[in-house]
Amino acid sequence: MRKSQVTMKPNLLLTNDDGIGAPGLHALFCELREIANTTIVAPLVEQSAVGHAITMSDPLRVSNYEREGGFYGYAVKGTPADCVKIAYCAIMDQKPDMLVSGINLGENTGINTIYSGTVSAATEGAMLGIPAFAISLDIYDNPDFQYAAKFASALTRSILQNGLPRGVCLNVNVPACHESEIEGITVTKQGLSVFQDQFDRRVDPHGRVYYWLTGQKVDIENDKYTDEGAVRANKVSITPIHYDLTHYAFIDTLRKWDIKP
Amino acid sequence: MRKSQVTMKPNLLLTNDDGIGAPGLHALFCELREIANTTIVAPLVEQSAVGHAITMSDPLRVSNYEREGGFYGYAVKGTPADCVKIAYCAIMDQKPDMLVSGINLGENTGINTIYSGTVSAATEGAMLGIPAFAISLDIYDNPDFQYAAKFASALTRSILQNGLPRGVCLNVNVPACHESEIEGITVTKQGLSVFQDQFDRRVDPHGRVYYWLTGQKVDIENDKYTDEGAVRANKVSITPIHYDLTHYAFIDTLRKWDIKP
Repeated sequence: MRKSQVTMKPNLLLTNDDGIGAPGLHALFCELREIANTTIVAPLVEQSAVGHAITMSDPLRVSNYEREGGFYGYAVKGTPADCVKIAYCAIMDQKPDMLVSGINLGENTGINTIYSGTVSAATEGAMLGIPAFAISLDIYDNPDFQYAAKFASALTRSILQNGLPRGVCLNVNVPACHESEIEGITVTKQGLSVFQDQFDRRVDPHGRVYYWLTGQKVDIENDKYTDEGAVRANKVSITPIHYDLTHYAFIDTLRKWDIKP
Repeated sequence: MRKSQVTMKPNLLLTNDDGIGAPGLHALFCELREIANTTIVAPLVEQSAVGHAITMSDPLRVSNYEREGGFYGYAVKGTPADCVKIAYCAIMDQKPDMLVSGINLGENTGINTIYSGTVSAATEGAMLGIPAFAISLDIYDNPDFQYAAKFASALTRSILQNGLPRGVCLNVNVPACHESEIEGITVTKQGLSVFQDQFDRRVDPHGRVYYWLTGQKVDIENDKYTDEGAVRANKVSITPIHYDLTHYAFIDTLRKWDIKP
């Protein structure tokens, strides 16, 4: 391969929230290195459900990480958002053309999206002006990442070609069925199904009480235009998301309130 | 006071991200106990910048907390979102009529909103169907919470009277000027000013490299209709926010993409 071809490949930043040793990240790397120069900067340890946390009270440590097959990366003792920030500001010589976060073990749909470290990494990319997407596979046990990785590659090419508006990133969820059973790709909105939280109260061997968070999703909508509905219908779901939390529709009503401190 | 009057007071859940011992929470309590029965469930230790993190890999511990002046609360070894969940599901006998999170030390405006534990507590309230707001004071040193606490009380009364749409909560930012210099109350949208992150690279006494996240806000807009602009103009800013991250405007464009995995 001539040098000019190498340098013309786009620079991709890869990260996740399952940790740098997670198989989903490895699958992503194996597929995306075919079309890009990849830099892997991911959490040293699993960071599920950290949301958009960043580390400010402690210093960040970065160590080199290597596994078979040319997988070299940087392991950060921090959150997915930390990984994106430090990759962009301190690790990468050339700024990334794109960021891909995943492949997450388990869906990140509906309300879960707001708790997701995988998605927050993509959002952090959008904040930094890097076109980005998060990709999750709707399964926890015996995952086969092959189709999701292939999809990630196709979407990367589409984003490099079409671009994304500033501040927008994509949240992709792939059903766990066999590739032959995939019913297509659909653009969705975030579902708003509610989790019914429960706390499992226990007493430790020293007599002290502790609680485990448990619970289950309670569907308040079963809309095929939502990420949840799409994945349930064996479709790949793509939801464009952003970090402007403003609920514009309520502004006018709120302006009429008479608040008297 | 007759018993019927006591029981007719609304039940308020108070939380924050600065920790249960923080003076802003104490100020909130002192003001709000005048109009409500308060239950305080807040993090045992400071949880700034944790975003919407929840604790799933570790059990949650809850301990009783007491300080002078009738301040009784529950200290949770977890995040603000954990506090709201466990208060709602396991601690409170009667469900809260409202939730107030704060008073935070330092503004939570613009992009900061997404990193904020204080705001995430209010968002978690909205997820659970509890009318909620977060309140922050734009100062770190020598804070005077008096006006902000009084404002919190007025807004609590307004919300109890008017209600909030399901899924919407309010993000309030109070300028740190004297009450006489407050230029009014304004309903705003979230600003989108960018942070210019930097990492301060250092070497520890054992020869190992570590990084501190630093940086400063770079204004990309100076719009008086934003939370940031309002606070800078000495106005109390109220932004209605929600947890639907969908960027609806981009859906149609994205549907035209030809993604071929």
